[in-house]
Amino acid sequence: MSDELNAVLAEIDAGLEASLERLFILLRMPSISTDPAHKPDCQRAADWLVGELNGLGFRASAHNTPGQPIVVAHSASAVRGPHILFYAHYDVQPVDPLALWETPPFEPKLVSAKSGGSWILGRGASDDKGQLMTFVEACRAWRKVAGGPPIKVSILFEGEEESGSPSLEAFLRAHKKELSVDIALVCDTDMWDSSTPAITTMLRGLVGEEVEITCANRDLHSGMFGGAARNPLHLLAGILAEMRDPDGRITIPGFYDGVPEIPAAVKRQWDGLSFDEAKFLDDIGLRIPAGEKGRSVLEQIWSRPTCEVNGITGGYSGAGFKTVIPGKASAKISFRLVAGQDPIRIRAAFRDFVSARLPADCSARFTSYIEAPATSQPLDGQWLTRARLALAEEWGQETATIGSGGSIPIVGDFKRLLDMDSLLIGFSQLDNRIHSPNEKYDLSSFHGGIRSWARILAAFAS
Amino acid sequence: MSDELNAVLAEIDAGLEASLERLFILLRMPSISTDPAHKPDCQRAADWLVGELNGLGFRASAHNTPGQPIVVAHSASAVRGPHILFYAHYDVQPVDPLALWETPPFEPKLVSAKSGGSWILGRGASDDKGQLMTFVEACRAWRKVAGGPPIKVSILFEGEEESGSPSLEAFLRAHKKELSVDIALVCDTDMWDSSTPAITTMLRGLVGEEVEITCANRDLHSGMFGGAARNPLHLLAGILAEMRDPDGRITIPGFYDGVPEIPAAVKRQWDGLSFDEAKFLDDIGLRIPAGEKGRSVLEQIWSRPTCEVNGITGGYSGAGFKTVIPGKASAKISFRLVAGQDPIRIRAAFRDFVSARLPADCSARFTSYIEAPATSQPLDGQWLTRARLALAEEWGQETATIGSGGSIPIVGDFKRLLDMDSLLIGFSQLDNRIHSPNEKYDLSSFHGGIRSWARILAAFAS
Repeated sequence: MSDELNAVLAEIDAGLEASLERLFILLRMPSISTDPAHKPDCQRAADWLVGELNGLGFRASAHNTPGQPIVVAHSASAVRGPHILFYAHYDVQPVDPLALWETPPFEPKLVSAKSGGSWILGRGASDDKGQLMTFVEACRAWRKVAGGPPIKVSILFEGEEESGSPSLEAFLRAHKKELSVDIALVCDTDMWDSSTPAITTMLRGLVGEEVEITCANRDLHSGMFGGAARNPLHLLAGILAEMRDPDGRITIPGFYDGVPEIPAAVKRQWDGLSFDEAKFLDDIGLRIPAGEKGRSVLEQIWSRPTCEVNGITGGYSGAGFKTVIPGKASAKISFRLVAGQDPIRIRAAFRDFVSARLPADCSARFTSYIEAPATSQPLDGQWLTRARLALAEEWGQETATIGSGGSIPIVGDFKRLLDMDSLLIGFSQLDNRIHSPNEKYDLSSFHGGIRSWARILAAFAS
Repeated sequence: MSDELNAVLAEIDAGLEASLERLFILLRMPSISTDPAHKPDCQRAADWLVGELNGLGFRASAHNTPGQPIVVAHSASAVRGPHILFYAHYDVQPVDPLALWETPPFEPKLVSAKSGGSWILGRGASDDKGQLMTFVEACRAWRKVAGGPPIKVSILFEGEEESGSPSLEAFLRAHKKELSVDIALVCDTDMWDSSTPAITTMLRGLVGEEVEITCANRDLHSGMFGGAARNPLHLLAGILAEMRDPDGRITIPGFYDGVPEIPAAVKRQWDGLSFDEAKFLDDIGLRIPAGEKGRSVLEQIWSRPTCEVNGITGGYSGAGFKTVIPGKASAKISFRLVAGQDPIRIRAAFRDFVSARLPADCSARFTSYIEAPATSQPLDGQWLTRARLALAEEWGQETATIGSGGSIPIVGDFKRLLDMDSLLIGFSQLDNRIHSPNEKYDLSSFHGGIRSWARILAAFAS
């Protein structure tokens, strides 16, 4: 290891408290991208990041889009070697149900964990502000020790990842030349466990859809009309129930068309990870895997497509009771896709499935949300090999190459629009409660993450 | 017809505008009993009614209960003859979805109907403040002409009818002596059509229930856990769907135990009403009856039990999209019962049905709301015969004796607790949008209703 890298790592260790304070500034901004009320907070987060990056010798700016701003920065140092693009997002998920948060979601706190170590609590701590700041702080240490990172670094911070990235494709097309570099580093994924670093090479795709079913032309009294009038909540429940068979398979015609079995080599590697299914489920209060029968839990979440109802709305939801038959009912639904599935065809098949089950006097209105295919990365590229070694050195454990049930559409966009591969490296952990109340990020993730990026930058320079 | 009654009817006609103004005062009070925020409005409505009744020579007072006040009044006039108890309720349903109201729900308005005549618009116009005031205004006319009603009149105005009447049973038990009279007149039902008066002799019962299903111990990311973690919305949808078979029958074991076929004589009488099924459905934007196959719509709503989902809550319901698997999901459900069904057994059977379908790692929590058996009244009593004639004289049409799909638990309570029969006479119409946005009451219902009560009081005195 070079003296320079040693100095960078020492600088990171010495500056950890200050790094944490900067992260807390960002965590205090409620940059919920899906909620129009928080648009000013997204702008504030983007502006703050621009200020930080300019202070580190980058040429940074916040670009307006029809939605939230996109931050782009380029390192000014005229070094040789490869050119990388770092991607993370500064927007966060909504915080409801707010009542379940033990501390206010936008008042971050460092607390001692019962299991040892410390946790950073707050919305975005793990997804993705904490991860985003690991790279910023690594650049800060390199700046202090060596005037800047040892390779050319560009940065792309998005503000709409949690709301389907509606502005991203047009932006990538418009900035293709500026953003097409050797390799993208995407920091929005997990470690394998708290001590084992991981590079994620398979991601599921995502189709988001909302359906609103209309039966009667108004809400009805359930006594005066109950028994004769169609109830859209019953109708919706029936359609959603019919979408899954008792073995956990999705029944939409064509849903599994093109879905491959994973190669034996990959399966062997996953078996080698000694994943503890019982512990995985126990952590979330469950015991029985709910997915396709005959598949391991890792298969169910990494390599098999699925469908989830993310919300149902209809009728009376207030306190007490109301004997109403609603005129309308709606559901938000998401499909996680694997390689071989076409998001456009899946959406159409879902709509056909619903429409075929509507009585002639009822109707459905569909709304499209996100649409992203699954992606997978080659396991033998030079960047992956170097990153894997750098991570192993930092964590003292071999780096796992894993799948993920989540979806990071930008990985597909980088390939499709910029012809650029991505390396997915992140330091979150499965119990970080992302998208849930009481989201947290281990201090060890934050600290080790900063150190990992410092090492990866060095490894890419060599 | 006596000169006295003629004078009372003339007084009603001359005072209609003033009667309407008093109704509007009551309609402006948002006495939503199910919502704790409106408790002061319920108190205000009760106090206003007490003031009105005292002004008409009644001894009236508002009794405090654990919930909303109950107004009781007794006529002071020492007349002979029968003693009746008039019942109506001053509380109203919630108003959501508020956006669908064409005028604010608590700013009543008189508007011209396209079909001719006028409508009183506002929450409670028909259910039940408009109906309640028909009797108050009839008493006012009798007071002016003859110093008071021609028979002994007691009044019971409830403030919790729309929230399950939790305080009523204890109140009836405590005031049994004071309230047990010859016959109850309950004013909370419909006419057969806009020109045909009706007495309702069959009412369905009601069981209200809420179930909350818990799967995971928190909301989950649908990517990280989707496919492996049980989704309570799927589970709930499956259970609700399974409760109805494709022929519209409820599949809960024992649900139809004891349910009788209606007698041939009653069926013949219903057939004689020439009910227009197509028009009934068309008015609410539907064409296909959704209930049990092989049953007429009148049977489906008057003489067959059913189950309706009144609301589902779970997951993300805000604007945009959130890829969440909720930890919990809940449904509000009501059963309409017919004679022969025991509400307690139906509730237990539902809970068993749900519990039997829960995976071992999920749980359900149940909340009881209302519980009332179906009721039916004899068709040949002296009070029914006299009222039928009085109504026919007022409306110039024979009085229909009909069923109703709704539930008025007090009718069962009067019988069970006070050993008192009820006559169900009301002037609402099926298109009055009760429990829905834009509730209305025809001015002809209000005017004809006041005149009808004036006649019925005279008929009972003779």
